[in-house]
Amino acid sequence: MSLNELGIVRRTVERADAAAVAKLSQFGVATVHEAMGRVGLARPYLRPIYAGARLCGTAVTVLLQPGDNWMLHVAAEQLQDGDVVVAACTSDCDDGFFGELLATSFRARGARGLVIDGGVRDVRELTEMDFPVFSRAVNAKGTIKATLGSVNVPVVCAGAYVRPGDVVVADDDGVVFVPAATAQQVADASAKREANEAEKRAKLASGVLGLDMYGMREPLERAGLRYVD
Amino acid sequence: MSLNELGIVRRTVERADAAAVAKLSQFGVATVHEAMGRVGLARPYLRPIYAGARLCGTAVTVLLQPGDNWMLHVAAEQLQDGDVVVAACTSDCDDGFFGELLATSFRARGARGLVIDGGVRDVRELTEMDFPVFSRAVNAKGTIKATLGSVNVPVVCAGAYVRPGDVVVADDDGVVFVPAATAQQVADASAKREANEAEKRAKLASGVLGLDMYGMREPLERAGLRYVD
Amino acid sequence: MSLNELGIVRRTVERADAAAVAKLSQFGVATVHEAMGRVGLARPYLRPIYAGARLCGTAVTVLLQPGDNWMLHVAAEQLQDGDVVVAACTSDCDDGFFGELLATSFRARGARGLVIDGGVRDVRELTEMDFPVFSRAVNAKGTIKATLGSVNVPVVCAGAYVRPGDVVVADDDGVVFVPAATAQQVADASAKREANEAEKRAKLASGVLGLDMYGMREPLERAGLRYVD
Amino acid sequence: MSLNELGIVRRTVERADAAAVAKLSQFGVATVHEAMGRVGLARPYLRPIYAGARLCGTAVTVLLQPGDNWMLHVAAEQLQDGDVVVAACTSDCDDGFFGELLATSFRARGARGLVIDGGVRDVRELTEMDFPVFSRAVNAKGTIKATLGSVNVPVVCAGAYVRPGDVVVADDDGVVFVPAATAQQVADASAKREANEAEKRAKLASGVLGLDMYGMREPLERAGLRYVD
Amino acid sequence: MSLNELGIVRRTVERADAAAVAKLSQFGVATVHEAMGRVGLARPYLRPIYAGARLCGTAVTVLLQPGDNWMLHVAAEQLQDGDVVVAACTSDCDDGFFGELLATSFRARGARGLVIDGGVRDVRELTEMDFPVFSRAVNAKGTIKATLGSVNVPVVCAGAYVRPGDVVVADDDGVVFVPAATAQQVADASAKREANEAEKRAKLASGVLGLDMYGMREPLERAGLRYVD
Amino acid sequence: MSLNELGIVRRTVERADAAAVAKLSQFGVATVHEAMGRVGLARPYLRPIYAGARLCGTAVTVLLQPGDNWMLHVAAEQLQDGDVVVAACTSDCDDGFFGELLATSFRARGARGLVIDGGVRDVRELTEMDFPVFSRAVNAKGTIKATLGSVNVPVVCAGAYVRPGDVVVADDDGVVFVPAATAQQVADASAKREANEAEKRAKLASGVLGLDMYGMREPLERAGLRYVD
Repeated sequence: MSLNELGIVRRTVERADAAAVAKLSQFGVATVHEAMGRVGLARPYLRPIYAGARLCGTAVTVLLQPGDNWMLHVAAEQLQDGDVVVAACTSDCDDGFFGELLATSFRARGARGLVIDGGVRDVRELTEMDFPVFSRAVNAKGTIKATLGSVNVPVVCAGAYVRPGDVVVADDDGVVFVPAATAQQVADASAKREANEAEKRAKLASGVLGLDMYGMREPLERAGLRYVD
Repeated sequence: MSLNELGIVRRTVERADAAAVAKLSQFGVATVHEAMGRVGLARPYLRPIYAGARLCGTAVTVLLQPGDNWMLHVAAEQLQDGDVVVAACTSDCDDGFFGELLATSFRARGARGLVIDGGVRDVRELTEMDFPVFSRAVNAKGTIKATLGSVNVPVVCAGAYVRPGDVVVADDDGVVFVPAATAQQVADASAKREANEAEKRAKLASGVLGLDMYGMREPLERAGLRYVD
Repeated sequence: MSLNELGIVRRTVERADAAAVAKLSQFGVATVHEAMGRVGLARPYLRPIYAGARLCGTAVTVLLQPGDNWMLHVAAEQLQDGDVVVAACTSDCDDGFFGELLATSFRARGARGLVIDGGVRDVRELTEMDFPVFSRAVNAKGTIKATLGSVNVPVVCAGAYVRPGDVVVADDDGVVFVPAATAQQVADASAKREANEAEKRAKLASGVLGLDMYGMREPLERAGLRYVD
Repeated sequence: MSLNELGIVRRTVERADAAAVAKLSQFGVATVHEAMGRVGLARPYLRPIYAGARLCGTAVTVLLQPGDNWMLHVAAEQLQDGDVVVAACTSDCDDGFFGELLATSFRARGARGLVIDGGVRDVRELTEMDFPVFSRAVNAKGTIKATLGSVNVPVVCAGAYVRPGDVVVADDDGVVFVPAATAQQVADASAKREANEAEKRAKLASGVLGLDMYGMREPLERAGLRYVD
Repeated sequence: MSLNELGIVRRTVERADAAAVAKLSQFGVATVHEAMGRVGLARPYLRPIYAGARLCGTAVTVLLQPGDNWMLHVAAEQLQDGDVVVAACTSDCDDGFFGELLATSFRARGARGLVIDGGVRDVRELTEMDFPVFSRAVNAKGTIKATLGSVNVPVVCAGAYVRPGDVVVADDDGVVFVPAATAQQVADASAKREANEAEKRAKLASGVLGLDMYGMREPLERAGLRYVD
Repeated sequence: MSLNELGIVRRTVERADAAAVAKLSQFGVATVHEAMGRVGLARPYLRPIYAGARLCGTAVTVLLQPGDNWMLHVAAEQLQDGDVVVAACTSDCDDGFFGELLATSFRARGARGLVIDGGVRDVRELTEMDFPVFSRAVNAKGTIKATLGSVNVPVVCAGAYVRPGDVVVADDDGVVFVPAATAQQVADASAKREANEAEKRAKLASGVLGLDMYGMREPLERAGLRYVD
């Protein structure tokens, strides 16, 4: 997979531990991203095609060519139960690479959804199917099947580096990728973080200020903040 | 209508055949676009102002000047039952050219909706009226009535060429324009395509792969696709 | 507050008259913007994070640094019942400056919502809280607390100039800022404008053309509009 | 050329009159656009790849598919002395469709330059060749040769409608397309306009105000302009 | 100038002190911006129309309407020697509001250049005149003269707040606005900053590290930076 | 370097072979990208700050935080003769992270230039120094030194994955990253490709068509291309 990363399908993927994936699925993207140390996020232009879309699973990665969705068909065969297709493209392209027929196929093969740095179509049908999709565009423009990309190679999707088998978590706040190797660690850190937040929420709801709860007054004064009337 | 296309209102428009329009209204934008041979789409930045908006009708075209909606008022008089107003602008402008008063007038004159390469406002009211609008922006910014554009001249709307009388189909997936002359042909091709899809859907849902259903394995191999473990 | 506007918190703010704010809260953004003479609007890239979000209140302004939300915590202490936080940033930044914990705190201190020329996160939670937010992006990306900005200084938010105490009105159509000094005047003009519109709406709904209702035929002819067949 | 405009090469093109093209080549894009009545311009995102690039000739049009430059090779054969290749694409694509090898071929066949609603590469070599190119992007990304578009069909290029044989004028200010049928008329109007400007320039240079030269004071007053101190 | 800021020309402007302007003209935009405490910059989308363009002067402000350059003609009369026209627009518009005829007029009236949150044309002629222009776009698209804006009212230009009489400094790095009231202070701080930099430059050129010169090693360690092999 | 990739400086980097780098420096970005099999390119929004800028060297990578250039100072110490600094950012940020003082320091430590997915300033001075910089923006806006990023960790820069020690080639056509492991292979393939092109260029210059030279007529016919008159 060295000089030319195109034209390859990797069949053996080490997927993240199922228990870790299950645990991660309980948390929102913002929580997971914070628990990872503020890394791993896709750029925010990836948006859900319907409000409330949400997914968590292991990545089957796809590298597409502009205007060509051939590799999505190739990817379908590599899907296992609990996978999420993560599609990148060799150049920015808003064409509609994906629609309800492919979604039907992906779901039949076990997929939980799609994250694509490209366009999709059949939004109404995908919404009715409750098939979660996060994309850069909605576009009825069809694609061809003529050029090789790859399946299950590392890709850059919306600015984030993703390896096959990594965990994908996506919700209204965006998309985050968790390396398979640290999935359990991030799941644990997410749980801890969330527990922590309940207490903070209660305090803030009662009118306590973050200035006091987080001990910010002294550093703000040291930084030179001046109050005037 | 040669040297200067501005300042003209064409009153006589040959609208697409009503039966063809009625048939086209049964299909989604992606289907119609495919049935036309993958042409005729507006660029995907035109979006519905509310989820589920959908329209199909014959185009009354409008050429606007930036920040000026005078010609929309002129267009109202040219509307017939079943028309859709298709508005282009001589330069990119996100101003709010259209709101609920104009929608009230357009509907009273028979219009089924609006496609505009510009901004609109009164989104809440338009949603309550269920008046479908596809626009490049939502913007409260008002416009003036000072400069002539044209009505019922050919226009370029969001990158697509539209003639008065052409069929406009728009839904969550975008906007497609079908030449009046080929409306029936495209409607028939759309029907055929849709019939075709039901069968494919069933196969894919049962787990059959597109690789097999579409006979892709051999061309993929010929193109050099390699499977590795 | 001259040479360097950073590092300052103004505690005393002359807020717009409460009665004027209450009156303005009855009108939409498009109406208020027209009543002001077509000024005061934020650029249309500020969008509600959920359909139907709506707010009206007095501005507590915040000047943020990119990737840093420290000043939002400082602003919480300056909030009074009926305020809206209006946050600008010293450079374009889509990071998620704000989420549900800050919303909980802001609400506890009396805030009615947030307008931010930056990103926010926790969209699902904010929607459940019905806490109205108008932002330039949704982004799970977290921020730090390291650099001073200011609170309650005049700011430019999405291209609009806002002073602390000005009235903020926001709905599906965008965001408009009304100077405190003219709030009552604008509220009165808005009421007048709205009254006016009911009558127009009825006429247009009955099929009367804007061409006739607004007396446009003569100026159009003078401008040289030609009708052809 | 009805239902499906793809897959066609038209060999017979009625090119604009050579004398009209020669006359138009003396004027700048802004002048020609004004002489046409302010229509015919491409959107301003088309930019010259080097300062001072300039061209005028008759359009050989090309409709490309995203990431595919096959049709540019097909177009080479249709070129005649004095032609300009005008390339549109079925969807927005910044790939590098064109470089110095194609420029060498185009020039050998008589082309004066390229206008492309897509990306190009080999900017240094093209600059050294003084081969004028106006494009939406510079991009080293290569393209494939797999899908049919068309040559010498009407296209929409950067928002402007162009027919084969129309005149293309491009310079630092952008790109304008003049219909073949009105080329002489527009050339004459351009000449008149330019003659007119020399006199105005001299007056303005001497300190005369446009307010007086164009007689604006009275209409400004009528519009309500107020001078305050 | 309260409810409706449109339709006003202020003839009396308190311009920044000439000596302060002269001193500021010696410094680059980055230096002045730093000397102001990192405020006052226009957004970076304002770019010079030719490399090396540079200006410094006192602002005559203009508020334009989209597609309408009437107020630039009105502004010409208000110009004094050493002024720079600073034009904002009530909505985003890339039309070509300005060209060489207006530049000829502005120069004859004493203007040193133009900063415009809009488009301009005649780039070749403006470059030959060495008339510095900083704009958001180059566009041959012409404008009309139909709607009132204002001259010498405070405006927001490319995200920065500017009052008539403020100092404008622009070069290859962008555009900065210095309040008239603090012009001398900022000029002095700029001089101090620049003197300071010569020494730093020499040290860095000799191979001294910023880590040592700025004493960063200790704070980096405190922040937790880890060196690994 | 697992859970949290921030806060790390790797001192030991295996740089690409010097001979391979020297060979690669003879080729343009388009050639290298093709020789790699059309992968490895940064997105085309990275542009040289002056025409003709060009660099080739080994990557010292930097991960920045928005609005914070602390890590560029840390990176200076890790530079070796022949290196190029490749800076990514945890979110999109156009601030001016880099200017002539840092360039002076980088050059003194052996750097050949900078590729940055962010903004830079001091364009005039950098041009005079002939210090090649490829950036997403030019911006006078300064940055702070408060938050840890990393140095010499793998980064995603403008959509491309880069490891410390990889080869960076940049010119007017963009930026390409060659993995250290395949640098020699890609250099050889580039040489072969370039040799190949000289012959093609001569043929095309003599009027031979690509249609014939590349043997395209038969596949075009098979694809269904129709010639009409």
